[in-house]
Amino acid sequence: MTEHRVVFTPSGKRGGFAEGTSLLEAARRLGVDLDSVCGGRGICGRCQVDVAEGAFAKHAVDSRADHASPWSAVEQRYVEKRGSFPSGRRLGCQARICGDLVVDVPPESQVHRQVVRKRAEEHAIEIDPVVRLHMVVVREPDMSDPSSDFRRLQEALAEQWGVADATADLAVLKTLQTTLRAGGWTVTAAVRDGWEIVALFPGFAIDAYGFAVDVGSTTIAAYLCDLASGAVLASVGAMNPQIRFGEDLMSRVSYAMMNPGGKAELTRAVRDAIDALIGEATHQAGVARNQIVEVTLVGNPVMHHLALGLDPTELGSAPFALAIDGACEVKARDLGLDVAPGAVVYALPCIAGHVGADATGVVLAEAPYLGDALRLIADVGTNAEIVFGNRERLLAASSPTGPAFEGAQISCGQRAAPGAIERVRIDRETLEPRFKVIGCDLWSGDPGFADATVGLGVTGVCGSGIIEAIAELFLAGVVTEDGVIDGALAQHTSRVEPVGRAFAYVLNEGPPRLLIHQTDVRAIQLAKAALYAGAKLLIERRGAAPERITLAGAFGAQIDPVYAMALGMIPDCDLEKVASAGNAAGTGARIALLNRAARAEIERVARTIEKVETAIEPSFQSLFVAAMAIPNKTDAFPNLARRIDLPAPKAAPNEGGRRRRRSASIAPA
Amino acid sequence: MTEHRVVFTPSGKRGGFAEGTSLLEAARRLGVDLDSVCGGRGICGRCQVDVAEGAFAKHAVDSRADHASPWSAVEQRYVEKRGSFPSGRRLGCQARICGDLVVDVPPESQVHRQVVRKRAEEHAIEIDPVVRLHMVVVREPDMSDPSSDFRRLQEALAEQWGVADATADLAVLKTLQTTLRAGGWTVTAAVRDGWEIVALFPGFAIDAYGFAVDVGSTTIAAYLCDLASGAVLASVGAMNPQIRFGEDLMSRVSYAMMNPGGKAELTRAVRDAIDALIGEATHQAGVARNQIVEVTLVGNPVMHHLALGLDPTELGSAPFALAIDGACEVKARDLGLDVAPGAVVYALPCIAGHVGADATGVVLAEAPYLGDALRLIADVGTNAEIVFGNRERLLAASSPTGPAFEGAQISCGQRAAPGAIERVRIDRETLEPRFKVIGCDLWSGDPGFADATVGLGVTGVCGSGIIEAIAELFLAGVVTEDGVIDGALAQHTSRVEPVGRAFAYVLNEGPPRLLIHQTDVRAIQLAKAALYAGAKLLIERRGAAPERITLAGAFGAQIDPVYAMALGMIPDCDLEKVASAGNAAGTGARIALLNRAARAEIERVARTIEKVETAIEPSFQSLFVAAMAIPNKTDAFPNLARRIDLPAPKAAPNEGGRRRRRSASIAPA
Repeated sequence: MTEHRVVFTPSGKRGGFAEGTSLLEAARRLGVDLDSVCGGRGICGRCQVDVAEGAFAKHAVDSRADHASPWSAVEQRYVEKRGSFPSGRRLGCQARICGDLVVDVPPESQVHRQVVRKRAEEHAIEIDPVVRLHMVVVREPDMSDPSSDFRRLQEALAEQWGVADATADLAVLKTLQTTLRAGGWTVTAAVRDGWEIVALFPGFAIDAYGFAVDVGSTTIAAYLCDLASGAVLASVGAMNPQIRFGEDLMSRVSYAMMNPGGKAELTRAVRDAIDALIGEATHQAGVARNQIVEVTLVGNPVMHHLALGLDPTELGSAPFALAIDGACEVKARDLGLDVAPGAVVYALPCIAGHVGADATGVVLAEAPYLGDALRLIADVGTNAEIVFGNRERLLAASSPTGPAFEGAQISCGQRAAPGAIERVRIDRETLEPRFKVIGCDLWSGDPGFADATVGLGVTGVCGSGIIEAIAELFLAGVVTEDGVIDGALAQHTSRVEPVGRAFAYVLNEGPPRLLIHQTDVRAIQLAKAALYAGAKLLIERRGAAPERITLAGAFGAQIDPVYAMALGMIPDCDLEKVASAGNAAGTGARIALLNRAARAEIERVARTIEKVETAIEPSFQSLFVAAMAIPNKTDAFPNLARRIDLPAPKAAPNEGGRRRRRSASIAPA
Repeated sequence: MTEHRVVFTPSGKRGGFAEGTSLLEAARRLGVDLDSVCGGRGICGRCQVDVAEGAFAKHAVDSRADHASPWSAVEQRYVEKRGSFPSGRRLGCQARICGDLVVDVPPESQVHRQVVRKRAEEHAIEIDPVVRLHMVVVREPDMSDPSSDFRRLQEALAEQWGVADATADLAVLKTLQTTLRAGGWTVTAAVRDGWEIVALFPGFAIDAYGFAVDVGSTTIAAYLCDLASGAVLASVGAMNPQIRFGEDLMSRVSYAMMNPGGKAELTRAVRDAIDALIGEATHQAGVARNQIVEVTLVGNPVMHHLALGLDPTELGSAPFALAIDGACEVKARDLGLDVAPGAVVYALPCIAGHVGADATGVVLAEAPYLGDALRLIADVGTNAEIVFGNRERLLAASSPTGPAFEGAQISCGQRAAPGAIERVRIDRETLEPRFKVIGCDLWSGDPGFADATVGLGVTGVCGSGIIEAIAELFLAGVVTEDGVIDGALAQHTSRVEPVGRAFAYVLNEGPPRLLIHQTDVRAIQLAKAALYAGAKLLIERRGAAPERITLAGAFGAQIDPVYAMALGMIPDCDLEKVASAGNAAGTGARIALLNRAARAEIERVARTIEKVETAIEPSFQSLFVAAMAIPNKTDAFPNLARRIDLPAPKAAPNEGGRRRRRSASIAPA
């Protein structure tokens, strides 16, 4: 038989093949990474290749057209249906070898392609989801050979895809017979981990999706992802409905302990919310719920346990024993999620009683364990999960910041949403504010601001807005380094007014009238002190300063590092090296969705992270108290000082007179 | 270090051990089959051994007391609590080696002990259940080493029992933290298949149970078994509540197809019934539901599918495709069964659309695949599953006998229960009946029968009673070989009376008045013709006569082989070789419960059984029609003739006069 030589690029794999072998078959035999869902039937178009050269035999002069089979009717039909091909492009399953060939597999035809991430320091994600689609043609039943529909499906998967001994649970089996018949004995199976069928679709199906969920104490964020491309098709969020049972985690644990059926209520609330987000995301993206074939979950330990239906009671008091810390796989339907019948929820591992799957999500997303740089990563939510270290050693702690950074427990606070004030500037002389709201690029006071915000309104102040407001009030001398709103200023400006025994600052005359109260400053002080003290604890334990700081969380993504440092939320660091990572926990959940190796990686890394328990560290309380001041009494902040002329020390009360620090200003970055 | 020689009997395994080694530890190291649940803590008493000889060193004269450590306080406490020991008996975990020893492991201390079965031809069952109990002491949580409760349980199982990487599903994890604390960090884990924890009990627990279920179309039978001893602690049964949706399988399949929600109704009905039987059995035996750690299930394909929640629609018409034919494992809770939280239901494999897990249960119980004898095994229920063959080749078929053999669709019929007529004799001269009812050893007419049945009453006629009644009526000449009740006899006896256009025989004057109607004879004729034709089909296919016949099923257990043959239910065979096997399908379920290797065996054998589909066999119809006569027109029945003087051929109708065959009688066996 005539044999021809074929080289695949970019892998460089090469071999000899009999005349008439398809390029897909040749790629498979060589182990070349060439995708296919339909199994070589010219339907899915995933095996597109570029026949780059006609020949590489020494004396060959033939055109490539002679060395590959002619353009086929199947390819013509595919192109007419899906759009045109670049010149030289072929369907790998249709083009057959007729002579020596060089075949290039473009990135989009590789199974394990990489997803480009936004920030330079992020490591790329290789797409290799745990669930893959395989189309099969199943033998019809025959009374003279009475094997079951499932056995014939198993045989088809083994013969056509090399998937041996596939299993399916009852929920999938229930759909088997109708799906086989609806598809005319052709079905597409979503196969998990190479052996378990989690969904069946009649005929040919090319789209499978995953859903990554980050369950925070205050908010739930989730992402609908295309498992083939890694693209986020919908990004959705909601308040955690458990808030009605208690704002912070411990009050929810108390609720669960004190109320009969309380655990079940809390679990139902969070599961219903996740399921509602699935509904919202699939609706937005126009996909069916049963096309979601895998779910990943991150969350702090209490949320992790409640979402899984585990009792959080032990997490309410020392020694804060988790029920389980390893990664969990449970059926989505057992969590009441309406997705593909056999879909699995993969919950990332937890580290300890206060450092959960949200922290491991952040670690997976930011991968501090891969580099030499000493990184401080804080995921700021209702609790702050703080990770510090590098490839040699990683430490983690959790600090109870409370929900203030998320706009809760702040009199004018709200979740980051259109209409919320997110940026604040206060004139050092006049003490008049300017601000920006989410959804509008203009500053208040700019011409056209009122018109531009007609539809939005100004609805409240979100976390980053509160931070900037209080930092600016401090820089403008309205708030002292002890965090007191200076009532003496009420003589000079109507922006400062008495409220009860204390004073407040009028950020917006309204409507709505938005005031920064003394209690709001206290809430932010407590929150930032907790965050700072937690970070400091890890830094002291490690005995080295952070080389890079990353603020994660929906809130962390918005905050200006200068203000965070001015307020004393974070330790001193080169401001160029302070960055925000957005919802890194959610990103970790997405990575676990798209790459199976990432799961093994975070499971391994999680076991190596050293937990520092703030609750029993003797130094935490003193660090916390010291961190209450603005910025902080514990650090020199040389990096911050280069950008901000910090106010002069507070005048002694008996000096009287004006105490505004006019010198305070922010230098250009 | 001093080393002593120890020989274990009956295994003969021997080795040298350091002074002070416990006998349990020595047994483990040698791989001697010595049980333990508590892991050597002197609690469970499962490791009892007989220290049979003092020494076997050549010149040793020491008593055994010197070669084993002295009787310990732990042993004394155990004996005081549990009863006395035979002389020389020790707890293997407490007795330590101080010199050369011969140690006998009595059968009750072996993990893999054999269960003696009743009939000689039955193969013994070795006890080796898939779930085993392991008591462990778990390390308490410690904030400085924040591993989860589950991780510490895993570590304890690995260290103390060699169970590596144990898993537990959510339902078990939910019970973990409270169980660990209730047991003071000692728990007993029920470990399935060496890796999955299916139940956790606080402290020490020694009893674990299994539940074997046989779901018949008409009746459900179930057995609560001790997994350590194999003993049946409770045997329970109930009518299948699905009967209200249709008496036979096909009418239930139709119900499922025609009624929205019909499938779910049928599934719920059968699951509720099984769960109620679990309640009844655990109540009878005084055990807790959560001590049931494994369930096995057999049933015909429609019952199998409905119990699992699979749509039976495809089983309603050719080609009768099963959804799944392999063995299934599903969580008991997913079937709505309230047992141990992680307990698994193992459903035996099916063979084909009409030959299900009931047939494989029978095959496992009777093991025709092990012997040379050509065996015909019929499991007679609403359908008859028939298996024919030997180790070389096994054939199987299903025949639609209908529920007549179970007493249903018979005017005076009832399930075999106290008060039901189960034996019938009819005087050849007077045509007067005598009968016995279940629950009373006397025959009607015997002195004291009325008194003895006061509490029972005479409530109806069960399957075996109907068979005997009709066979006796035939032998007495009341029923012709065409199955007609001879109305001419009404002139001679008040036992025969007209009902509509036909005649009936008065079996009991009453109350209650019990009549054998013409329609009853017809129902039994149809049933026995179906059974016979199915058997005959397999015999013809194999081309050899059966050497042994086994009648299984609740009904099969009661029937007298002579009457079965007289009526023409079964082919001719040496009557000494016809036996009943009781509920063999249920026995198969019990075997699968007690012995894990049996599961692999029946899964393998099931794939080798050749299915003969009665529905498409051209000869089945003619065999069926021929088998309607009493006995049958198809066979000579030499074996039967040796025991019964068969009646003379029916006189031609125009001969008139009496047609009773006085010569018919049954010879002593």
